[in-house]
Amino acid sequence: MTIPAPRQRKNREHRERVGLLMVHTGDGKGKSTAAFGMAMRAAGHGMRVVIVQFIKGSRDCGELHALRRFPEITLHRAGEGFTWEVRDDDRQAALARWGMERAAEALAAGVDLLILDEVHIVLDKGFYDTDALLALLAARPDGVHVCCTGRRAPQALVDAADLVTEMRLIKHPWQQKIRAQRGIEF
Amino acid sequence: MTIPAPRQRKNREHRERVGLLMVHTGDGKGKSTAAFGMAMRAAGHGMRVVIVQFIKGSRDCGELHALRRFPEITLHRAGEGFTWEVRDDDRQAALARWGMERAAEALAAGVDLLILDEVHIVLDKGFYDTDALLALLAARPDGVHVCCTGRRAPQALVDAADLVTEMRLIKHPWQQKIRAQRGIEF
Repeated sequence: MTIPAPRQRKNREHRERVGLLMVHTGDGKGKSTAAFGMAMRAAGHGMRVVIVQFIKGSRDCGELHALRRFPEITLHRAGEGFTWEVRDDDRQAALARWGMERAAEALAAGVDLLILDEVHIVLDKGFYDTDALLALLAARPDGVHVCCTGRRAPQALVDAADLVTEMRLIKHPWQQKIRAQRGIEF
Repeated sequence: MTIPAPRQRKNREHRERVGLLMVHTGDGKGKSTAAFGMAMRAAGHGMRVVIVQFIKGSRDCGELHALRRFPEITLHRAGEGFTWEVRDDDRQAALARWGMERAAEALAAGVDLLILDEVHIVLDKGFYDTDALLALLAARPDGVHVCCTGRRAPQALVDAADLVTEMRLIKHPWQQKIRAQRGIEF
């Protein structure tokens, strides 16, 4: 895999730079959106970003259009649909393994920020082993940030994380029978 | 104010389009990041976005660099620093009023998504009246989405909102004395 060269890397060797393991979990909105926002913010700072998007399969997705403007961001799509859409567990597990290989490659290639979108679902459903992911992340180079998203983050991942945010659903338009809005929710 | 023309507006007249009032609150990370991610996603769909950023004053901010790639997004900076940085309440209130004027202009000019970043702090501190903001938002054109962020969303705003997400702090690197990381937290 090739990662485009960054535009600026001023702080590459900065001593205070620590690679954070971040977790966005909970049943509310904004877990993936905050991760994608973080990716674009990091790209704005000239950092190299790899996103592995598990589970989700939709192609009419505003994020994908937006990401085209960021050559610093590489997106690997390791999903074909949520578990109620793709019922073949072997296929889901194969896609998950493919995605984890992309993640391992990104870490080896010197990425600055790795986002594993919806990976918690992959782990929760047993499509990939949590301990294997933790081992991969523990062995990552110093200073590499990782952000994992999805409902039901495994406790072992929460325990290993530096920053954990729970997005809590307080009120949702589904409850008022308003359809998901293009550009806002997808 | 001029808003750049959108690249595509296929769904402009779509009947099922409903203007959502969204609230990101809580003491966790990701409130603004998810809003900025939403802005970039909406821009990816060709929607016109205006962000009024209250309170925050920093200029070394990855979001600002990232937003330059989105001519659909107009940013108005109505802040100079958090309340512990700018202690002159009259000045904060004047900046808040200036920001609200930009918001009103955006609504009148036909924006698709209006983001009021950190506005909850403005309301909570009394720099602007919550009822005045609610009246402005209630009178907005059909189909215009609004997203408000910040800690301590006023209850009246939560009551009026269609979608409310609380970002809860579960674990934060400050607790482990790790410095805020460029590209990740700012």
